Amino acid sequence: MISSRAENLEFSPIRKLVPLAQVAKKRGVTIYHLNIGQPDIASPPIFLKGIRSFKEKVVAYEKSDGSQALKESLVKYYRRLGLSVVSDDLVVTTGGSEALAMAFFILFSSGDECLTLDPTYTNYLTFAAYAGVKLKAVVTKIDNNFALPKTDSIKKAVTKKTRGIIITNPSNPTGAVYPQRVLSELVDFCVRRKLFIIADETYREFVYGKTKFVSLLSFKKAADWVVLTDSLSKRYSLCGARLGMIVTKNRQVVEAATKLAQARLASPTIEQAAASKLHRVPLKYFSRVKREYQKRRDTLIAGLEKIPGLKVSHPDGAFYLIAELPVKNAEDFCKFLLTDFSDKRETVMLAPAEGFYVTPSLGVNQVRIAYVLKTRDLTRSCELLRLALARYRG
Amino acid sequence: MISSRAENLEFSPIRKLVPLAQVAKKRGVTIYHLNIGQPDIASPPIFLKGIRSFKEKVVAYEKSDGSQALKESLVKYYRRLGLSVVSDDLVVTTGGSEALAMAFFILFSSGDECLTLDPTYTNYLTFAAYAGVKLKAVVTKIDNNFALPKTDSIKKAVTKKTRGIIITNPSNPTGAVYPQRVLSELVDFCVRRKLFIIADETYREFVYGKTKFVSLLSFKKAADWVVLTDSLSKRYSLCGARLGMIVTKNRQVVEAATKLAQARLASPTIEQAAASKLHRVPLKYFSRVKREYQKRRDTLIAGLEKIPGLKVSHPDGAFYLIAELPVKNAEDFCKFLLTDFSDKRETVMLAPAEGFYVTPSLGVNQVRIAYVLKTRDLTRSCELLRLALARYRG
Repeated sequence: MISSRAENLEFSPIRKLVPLAQVAKKRGVTIYHLNIGQPDIASPPIFLKGIRSFKEKVVAYEKSDGSQALKESLVKYYRRLGLSVVSDDLVVTTGGSEALAMAFFILFSSGDECLTLDPTYTNYLTFAAYAGVKLKAVVTKIDNNFALPKTDSIKKAVTKKTRGIIITNPSNPTGAVYPQRVLSELVDFCVRRKLFIIADETYREFVYGKTKFVSLLSFKKAADWVVLTDSLSKRYSLCGARLGMIVTKNRQVVEAATKLAQARLASPTIEQAAASKLHRVPLKYFSRVKREYQKRRDTLIAGLEKIPGLKVSHPDGAFYLIAELPVKNAEDFCKFLLTDFSDKRETVMLAPAEGFYVTPSLGVNQVRIAYVLKTRDLTRSCELLRLALARYRG
Repeated sequence: MISSRAENLEFSPIRKLVPLAQVAKKRGVTIYHLNIGQPDIASPPIFLKGIRSFKEKVVAYEKSDGSQALKESLVKYYRRLGLSVVSDDLVVTTGGSEALAMAFFILFSSGDECLTLDPTYTNYLTFAAYAGVKLKAVVTKIDNNFALPKTDSIKKAVTKKTRGIIITNPSNPTGAVYPQRVLSELVDFCVRRKLFIIADETYREFVYGKTKFVSLLSFKKAADWVVLTDSLSKRYSLCGARLGMIVTKNRQVVEAATKLAQARLASPTIEQAAASKLHRVPLKYFSRVKREYQKRRDTLIAGLEKIPGLKVSHPDGAFYLIAELPVKNAEDFCKFLLTDFSDKRETVMLAPAEGFYVTPSLGVNQVRIAYVLKTRDLTRSCELLRLALARYRG
């Protein structure tokens, strides 16, 4: 009855177990949510104040491509990072999600192939399906913390139909951060082969230790080929504000994105007004947040490494990691956590990793863990996971 | 470089002249905006109060398919209209726009045809292009106020590839409201031929005089075939809130829409919290708004009828009408209004109607006029239009 492309859609691996979680909550079980990248960090007070001081009598449409005030605020943000962005390079979108969906539609034709790294951000699969684009994956491995493969392996995956690659840096779901040298090689290759690069850098603020983040927007030679998709959701803990952006020097892409933006009229007005003050958020907000996440990552890894048979990746960024569990099927175990397990009326929710892989049958025994909770809760989560695995296997 | 489907997108006829308007404003010219359906009616105070009293410290993701509180509020709204909607029939979307885009993707496959009436809501063209769907138009005429054609003419437009029809009732851009008898025939035909009906009823509150509005959701026999797309934008003057919804009894459609909703994570959290109180808006809010618009329509038509050579339709609903101008090319004239005309430093902005037609070369001398201003401003707008036409033709 409905279209086969709609029937073939999958429930998000991040959210598909939510109905089971709701049942568990009704039974009185407390759930530690490690399944979803919903930070518990407070949103900047300047944003919340902006929301509360919305004074208009009519909640009217904002400009389709974003309010001028928000664009100017974003320009200031990018310039502080050393990126020479001007207001005309920007189209404000309804979340990073919309920026991604637009990029797939604009850069590729139906039937084209776009490369990605496996495991990948699961929702790319839906945005690609929406645009009729085939995602083809270059596999990365837990054993080297999901490092960006050499350009040679990427070259091998390119076919006549390949028109681009999407790079998530820092990576969701692996937390890997890609170094300058490898990115530079990749850029050279893409420019030479006329491949677009969708650069999803939503997590750029979340890079730990001595690791340096390098934006694909900083490679001048690739200016016409790089389309940055970005979001306020993670860096300001504003997931529910639904504001993102496309940033590119490619004028055709900006024009097409503006036309798509006009068709859906506008992004939320009230949030745009409040977000146009975010360039005033002091740098120490980010360093504090970063310190907090680094501590959480270290706590989580330490906790996970105590669990017999579990293999854990050591990521440098974002707030996710992939763990390989000593079970046959991680999704079955994730369901077990919600339906059959609890300790002192508590359990933990994880995202099965299989849905993050484009390549079939990979990641079946892996989970993605988001470390968006306080360290005490992460420690307890690891303990719950250890107990549950023992009971599940035992 | 970019995809041809993206290159083929058009700027919205409602917004394409905005750059010219900005230049005119910089010259100090005041513009009466009849180009866009942005009501000047105040948004309900209960919504604005909800925004200002947002108390959470983290602006977190809402549920992908919409907050339970908003769904329950919507159920109350539909029940008050006599429609037996339950919470499971609903998926909250980011504006009616997203509901439409989802419907095109879910109901049709790439290459399928969907019927619409010409002139149509211009943004359907982009949503259809997004989904690879071909819109095919059944023409309606200004001479009978753009009445819904007999089912016979619709039958003639159906081909092997036709999988559905989209009905905008009340119509944007024509303001036509379709009567029970003709809708009933259409429903019979669609059910017999297994055609989906996308029912865009965004303007249901705006129906004037003795005209009765009939929802396609009220035809029980078509429950599996009707997908309602709806929006808070117009009925509560909340265009900038970006909240809409898909409503259908078809479980497959609800499930597919939920999956698409999960991919883009969520609709705006703060607006959902505030909107979940909107069922408390008293009925007299709507009757007051309706009276105001009816007065505006009558004022506008009276003003337009005084202009020599201009032909105006007499719509029963929404807040738009189509007028045929005594010029060869209405878009050229609309540009002239912004670039070369002003009277006492004032001018008027209209939407050229050609972009609302799927059929090429129709509507070239027509404009869509939105009557979203106070009657005094509408009277002045008609005067400006008369002066401008005289100068343009003279």
